[in-house]
Amino acid sequence: MDGAGSLMRAAADAGVTACFANPGTTEMQLVAALDHERRIRPVLGLFEGVVTGAADGFARMSDMPAMTILHLGPGLANGLANLHNARRADSPMLNVVGDHATWHRDADAPLTSDIESLAGPMSGWVRTARHAADLAADTAEALTAALDPPGRPATLIVPQDVAWGEIESVPSPEVAAATRSLVPPGAIESVAEVLRRSGERAVLLVGGTGCRRDGLLAAARVGAATGARVLVEGNPSRLERGAGVPSFGRVPYFPEQAAEVFENIDLLVLAGATDPVNFFGYPDQRSHPRTESCELVNLAGPAADVIHALDGLAAALDAPSVSTGTESVPEQPSGSALGPGELGMALASLQPEGAIVVDEAITSGGPYAGAARLAAPHDVLALTGGAIGYGLPAAVGAAIACPDRRVIALQADGSGLYTSQALWTMAREGLDITVVICANRSYRILEVELFRAGITEPGPASSSLTGLGSPAVDWVSLARGYGVGAVGATTADELVDALGRSFATEGPSLIEVAL
Amino acid sequence: MDGAGSLMRAAADAGVTACFANPGTTEMQLVAALDHERRIRPVLGLFEGVVTGAADGFARMSDMPAMTILHLGPGLANGLANLHNARRADSPMLNVVGDHATWHRDADAPLTSDIESLAGPMSGWVRTARHAADLAADTAEALTAALDPPGRPATLIVPQDVAWGEIESVPSPEVAAATRSLVPPGAIESVAEVLRRSGERAVLLVGGTGCRRDGLLAAARVGAATGARVLVEGNPSRLERGAGVPSFGRVPYFPEQAAEVFENIDLLVLAGATDPVNFFGYPDQRSHPRTESCELVNLAGPAADVIHALDGLAAALDAPSVSTGTESVPEQPSGSALGPGELGMALASLQPEGAIVVDEAITSGGPYAGAARLAAPHDVLALTGGAIGYGLPAAVGAAIACPDRRVIALQADGSGLYTSQALWTMAREGLDITVVICANRSYRILEVELFRAGITEPGPASSSLTGLGSPAVDWVSLARGYGVGAVGATTADELVDALGRSFATEGPSLIEVAL
Repeated sequence: MDGAGSLMRAAADAGVTACFANPGTTEMQLVAALDHERRIRPVLGLFEGVVTGAADGFARMSDMPAMTILHLGPGLANGLANLHNARRADSPMLNVVGDHATWHRDADAPLTSDIESLAGPMSGWVRTARHAADLAADTAEALTAALDPPGRPATLIVPQDVAWGEIESVPSPEVAAATRSLVPPGAIESVAEVLRRSGERAVLLVGGTGCRRDGLLAAARVGAATGARVLVEGNPSRLERGAGVPSFGRVPYFPEQAAEVFENIDLLVLAGATDPVNFFGYPDQRSHPRTESCELVNLAGPAADVIHALDGLAAALDAPSVSTGTESVPEQPSGSALGPGELGMALASLQPEGAIVVDEAITSGGPYAGAARLAAPHDVLALTGGAIGYGLPAAVGAAIACPDRRVIALQADGSGLYTSQALWTMAREGLDITVVICANRSYRILEVELFRAGITEPGPASSSLTGLGSPAVDWVSLARGYGVGAVGATTADELVDALGRSFATEGPSLIEVAL
Repeated sequence: MDGAGSLMRAAADAGVTACFANPGTTEMQLVAALDHERRIRPVLGLFEGVVTGAADGFARMSDMPAMTILHLGPGLANGLANLHNARRADSPMLNVVGDHATWHRDADAPLTSDIESLAGPMSGWVRTARHAADLAADTAEALTAALDPPGRPATLIVPQDVAWGEIESVPSPEVAAATRSLVPPGAIESVAEVLRRSGERAVLLVGGTGCRRDGLLAAARVGAATGARVLVEGNPSRLERGAGVPSFGRVPYFPEQAAEVFENIDLLVLAGATDPVNFFGYPDQRSHPRTESCELVNLAGPAADVIHALDGLAAALDAPSVSTGTESVPEQPSGSALGPGELGMALASLQPEGAIVVDEAITSGGPYAGAARLAAPHDVLALTGGAIGYGLPAAVGAAIACPDRRVIALQADGSGLYTSQALWTMAREGLDITVVICANRSYRILEVELFRAGITEPGPASSSLTGLGSPAVDWVSLARGYGVGAVGATTADELVDALGRSFATEGPSLIEVAL
């Protein structure tokens, strides 16, 4: 057995079932080892951003790490943006990055670079393997770190001579169990006390694993019992929504709107969330939307058992159970008009139960979020780290984690063009993904940001660097190029028809919605 | 005037004429400043790998830095692979990476990351700007560093409050002149002496700026006068070729072949090249193809005036001028067969004078290199750093640097899929680029490397992670999706026809060659 074989066996023994990969020469032993480790499904991405984004989507839906295989520094670099999102999502992940043989590194071959320096900022754990005989232990330690709550990407750099080194076959080392800490009753009771006092001048901010159904139900009880306003963090890693699940507002994107939410708030209780930070800094704005006098109380950190803490809080408050409202199906649009509103209604009314909605709609997604409040129960994955191009790759990973559920990639066009290669993997693997492209043919958010920066009449450079209309990208043609069937929709009727057909058909398809 | 304005003015004053950009919110002031600095042409890329690859192609053809604008850590990360190639090509470049306002960084907003750690491995100079009033000086220093021979990417990180800070308008600081050092006559004479002694047991290895016509002519004279074998480095940044230019072999890619070239060589003279290193380390191979007993002599380092040194060497050797051979046009293929051989002949016979051939053909490019020896004079840009996905972006930059020349992107399909978004920029800017896709529908080089690693019968995982045939990417459809006209060619006749039409038509077009 070689080092690569022991790595794969250790990963499979620890429960790794998927390997998203874009390998090169230095990873050939790792690739060959997959031929002998049939418990791990190999999935090729045409670009590393697809690979890391897929592993993120997989982790969010399975709470388990997928493996990635990346080719030296440049291959890792191509995957870093989605690794950044994964890190911000607390997604467990095992990145295996090949490197030159140890004795070849000092020669400074063309592909040599400082991989650790590149990996550090977007990984929660980094190690360069040194000995083939230690590779199984390295893998187990990486997985232990990846799974340690709240979870993180772990990056193991494997020089090729470590991968090809022959070793004795030994049992795989244990991966330490990932146990979330329980918030003690006394701590919960003291939060209950301040919440009782603050009443309507409190916000309970739910994030992380608190955004699953049971956490949201408990949060709703807390809100009902105390008058506190319940909010969900701005960009949740995974948020359950739809009929039977309480729906709360999220911390707004723009600082003025976020500040308004916290204007009369004296107490901010965090449940799996971190103190909200504005996405960007603007002149005459602060970094945090809450006021300086607002007290910050931590019920449960991201690494804690957030649902347990919220349940405990509701019990401490003697909170009654809450009704989650009338469960009426959202209205289906019709006619020739088609904008973000009709798109949101169409999707919310037609999406099948158990759908996984990967939301990278940016400026086009607002109406859908409102409409989907009472849609069939579903999960929403949001853009946690702000690095665009996560949507289509994350959809791939979510579909591989949950083969029995329909995945809907609600995708802005500008962002989608970063990693459109994911479409090919959808076709190759036959994944049940409906891609909805919100084609407004601009970086609309940047047009807004230009305006906010005082550029009310953009000149030729500003217009050119924010507009995507010339030429307009033809997503139907792109998708077909990657082997995915596609249609355009220019009216609500066409969209309803296209969505219905996509949901009724196995495998991926794409709908370009002209907005 | 704000800091961003002073940055743009300093860059334009120093001769920067092109800005390849994929900006975000933190770069809005930089974008707006371009509205007022009309000496710099803004060019949008749909992905940052396009942006940095274009700046590399621009630098190779103009010997001047282009600017890039990148969005925080993730935007930079997306551009790192082609920055790696640029660094290995000694390409001057000014990367401007926006960051959060200084007072916002500690709040750890979603897009926050350690940008310097990411920039370091692929930049030759990195600085984070601190004061708006210093931004023009920072820019001048970055450009001085970028242009200091042999050239390098310089990365200036600009927090947004530094960009928006109001300052007094002052003249732009000077950018220090980039002067290549002259090799002194005595040093040249001593190289001449060892070359005279070694005769046919010597190799003269030409690289860097020595690969321009005058350098190659002088090298040919040295070879003719001494019997030394002249070679060109494996992956030259820019190599002049074709009728009237001496053509030399390159250091082979595979270590066995490279070792064979150096088998009976006692003396290796470097002229603008570095000591050759094998691309990868293999069991039972060394890092360097030359033998341990082979003497290494440096005529001129990459930062020197290599052509001056080669001219001086030829003069010191009293070398006569050399004939560059009969200048017959390569043969044009015909009929239905179409493989890499016919592709090479067709391209070499039809390419217009002054073409710029961006070569990322990987395994499909060999026959073309042979056939193009006597093609019309042209430049070849090679994959210097091994990070695939440089070809289409570099073609964009070369076309913008040389609007009067036809650019030919000779592109492997697997590599091309990393950064196919470059096609859109070709269409938008109306660039005279002929894209030739070598569609063998596999990572062919990896199939070879698997075999070399002893995996002679790939299992399902190995086959799946190296093959691209299922589904086959339809490049014609992809190109049309990005607004570029495209055709497929399955016979030599069709290819000859398609090439002729592309060369006769302004703007970009793509030909998918089924190999």
